[in-house]
Amino acid sequence: MNVEILSIGDELLIGQTINTNASWLGQQLSAIGARIIKTVSIADTVDAIVNALDATEKDTNCVIITGGLGPTKDDITKHTLCSYFNTTLEIHQPTLDKIEDYFSKRNRPMLETNRQQAALPLNCTILNNSYGTAAGMWFDEKGKVFISLPGVPYEMKGIMTEEGFPRLKEKFSLKSIYHRTALTQGIGESFLAEIIKDWENSIREKGLGLAYLPSPGLVKLRITSYKGAEDADVIDEYFEQLAKLIPEALFGYENDTLPSVIGNLLKEKNLSIGTVESCTTGLLASQITSISGASDYFQGSLLTYSNELKMKIAQVSSENLENFGAVSEQVAIEMAEGGRKNLGVDICISTTGIAGPTGGTEEKPVGLVWIGIALPNKTIARKFIFGDNRERNLQMTVWSALNWLRYELKTN
Amino acid sequence: MNVEILSIGDELLIGQTINTNASWLGQQLSAIGARIIKTVSIADTVDAIVNALDATEKDTNCVIITGGLGPTKDDITKHTLCSYFNTTLEIHQPTLDKIEDYFSKRNRPMLETNRQQAALPLNCTILNNSYGTAAGMWFDEKGKVFISLPGVPYEMKGIMTEEGFPRLKEKFSLKSIYHRTALTQGIGESFLAEIIKDWENSIREKGLGLAYLPSPGLVKLRITSYKGAEDADVIDEYFEQLAKLIPEALFGYENDTLPSVIGNLLKEKNLSIGTVESCTTGLLASQITSISGASDYFQGSLLTYSNELKMKIAQVSSENLENFGAVSEQVAIEMAEGGRKNLGVDICISTTGIAGPTGGTEEKPVGLVWIGIALPNKTIARKFIFGDNRERNLQMTVWSALNWLRYELKTN
Repeated sequence: MNVEILSIGDELLIGQTINTNASWLGQQLSAIGARIIKTVSIADTVDAIVNALDATEKDTNCVIITGGLGPTKDDITKHTLCSYFNTTLEIHQPTLDKIEDYFSKRNRPMLETNRQQAALPLNCTILNNSYGTAAGMWFDEKGKVFISLPGVPYEMKGIMTEEGFPRLKEKFSLKSIYHRTALTQGIGESFLAEIIKDWENSIREKGLGLAYLPSPGLVKLRITSYKGAEDADVIDEYFEQLAKLIPEALFGYENDTLPSVIGNLLKEKNLSIGTVESCTTGLLASQITSISGASDYFQGSLLTYSNELKMKIAQVSSENLENFGAVSEQVAIEMAEGGRKNLGVDICISTTGIAGPTGGTEEKPVGLVWIGIALPNKTIARKFIFGDNRERNLQMTVWSALNWLRYELKTN
Repeated sequence: MNVEILSIGDELLIGQTINTNASWLGQQLSAIGARIIKTVSIADTVDAIVNALDATEKDTNCVIITGGLGPTKDDITKHTLCSYFNTTLEIHQPTLDKIEDYFSKRNRPMLETNRQQAALPLNCTILNNSYGTAAGMWFDEKGKVFISLPGVPYEMKGIMTEEGFPRLKEKFSLKSIYHRTALTQGIGESFLAEIIKDWENSIREKGLGLAYLPSPGLVKLRITSYKGAEDADVIDEYFEQLAKLIPEALFGYENDTLPSVIGNLLKEKNLSIGTVESCTTGLLASQITSISGASDYFQGSLLTYSNELKMKIAQVSSENLENFGAVSEQVAIEMAEGGRKNLGVDICISTTGIAGPTGGTEEKPVGLVWIGIALPNKTIARKFIFGDNRERNLQMTVWSALNWLRYELKTN
């Protein structure tokens, strides 16, 4: 099953919206063994849509189209597909019932534009939308399957999960591609490649693929087998070797995240956690709580952005602030210890740094961050030097803090 | 100038990486008056790259290629372009000097793979990369400009900003497209369309375009003129009318964000702010501090995830927690007032809600959120009912809180 993803909307081309739909579809389709040939974004004009439909590759047998199904006038996908596939619109009663129900449940009046969303092409299969008013459409035409979906992410995801993927699995006999991914933090891509050079060569000699997938602070290593799950054991062995090569950096596999790995360790050891954050202003706490069940171990945080609050609520001493500055080992240590005490938690992580773009000096440049960890038996602090980019520095700080804590929890 | 953006990398197709490069390029290119025809993502194979280069549209005169320039073995773009354009690689001394300098500055040894990144095609113009080791390449071939860039976002952005855009502006005489965007929060797309129906019709009758760009909790309204800036005044008048139609929802224009609008109002009124967050665990604080200069008004926050901490550090009473529950008007009010006092700020926003996926009851379903605002002269709380999706609920909570505060600051 070879898929193209076609995303419709000027907002994608001019960059007002990031195309997260294509990446989600890519993930889900890979997981069921489909191969994504390409993803294309085009303008919401009849010509652009027709050209893109005409230009699908010969060996593509499924085209998934997102966008342009809303109730407003710039939504033209339905009408364009209707004329492309030579069919007409008719009110689809079950969809109309759903839409009426949707509005009555929310105590909102239903508009004529919403009613028109139940006017659907006669020759397609309707894919039910449980999360909104634009139904999905499945056309079997010209030897290909065309699926048209709304662009609103949670509606698109709902339709595909409930209706689209089950039908695709049934329709196509899928050749399975087997991916396994190891997740690393703290080592840049070129360095990592040097450290694992022999390991990588051995993988390629076995006929497997290796891809480096870098994102700020993280590098994913993905091994691919085109023979499918029969290579699972071989790949597992490679990952066991990798864990010995880079124990500090390797933090998990597949859908693991630093918050989920930390969460499991904290639950296992029955430890509670909190944070005292300056430069990251809650990004660390929001990562820790991004997973279900975090209330088992996460208690709360103090975001001490100003020096006054560092002293007032986190027990940082005015002497250390004056002598060493807010971005210093001493203050990171005091913040972690003060938070551990005032929040009443077993472990407290602190962050204090100069995220940029302003605030740097010769001695303390933008990118300098101190992270502290107060544990039941010791408090430690570590200096990190990141780069010039604020957003990246904050993200790196969060990942570095969590991965360092993971390693401490794992080895102590 | 008609542009195609070609992104290379399996990680994009299988959705392990979201293509933020294409959206950034789209924004920047629109701003200089280029028209983006389509954006395409393909696999990192020679065949896929060659096919995509062959398939660029006739009326495209610039192709911007991202990805596949790294130092590792799966990076094949440079070699593929080299053979596609019939040229050879040679060490480019200025680039090699830069790379050597890059590594010596960071006290890291330089590897042979890094040295090879200075091997560049003979017949292209080298675009300097100040942020990494992979240079950009500019080919004038087959009547089109082809620009090849690394996929790492900040390197790609740096090369385009310093080298790519200035050269493109010089090379092409650009027809200017004029966009103006108004930003709204709190009214769904269909409702908004109904409210502004007459306004919208009048815009279309003037030959201008109107697009609705929804994202969770926000709808952007973009008016487009293909005649260029000569329509600026007409568009400004339309936005003035819009501000009267939806004063609570309309919060800004263009690159305004709720944090920047709030920040300006706080500075203007010389007021300090803090937050006491439960369900949002720092997302509200991190939004407020996402802009430069936030330390002028933002002091800090208490993230009281557990009920113990709500009582201990935010002065919530055990009676209210017992009688009304943590997600209640009474607790939202106490959190905001307790935070205002303990943080020593003029204004304090509180959030307490059931973000999901678990924790809902019949009486208090997932999606229920109370937001409190303690102002110098009054404390108010408001109930919101969002949906089933955790991430979306949190985002809606943050936007709703900020937009409500904006409206209070503006009208009081």
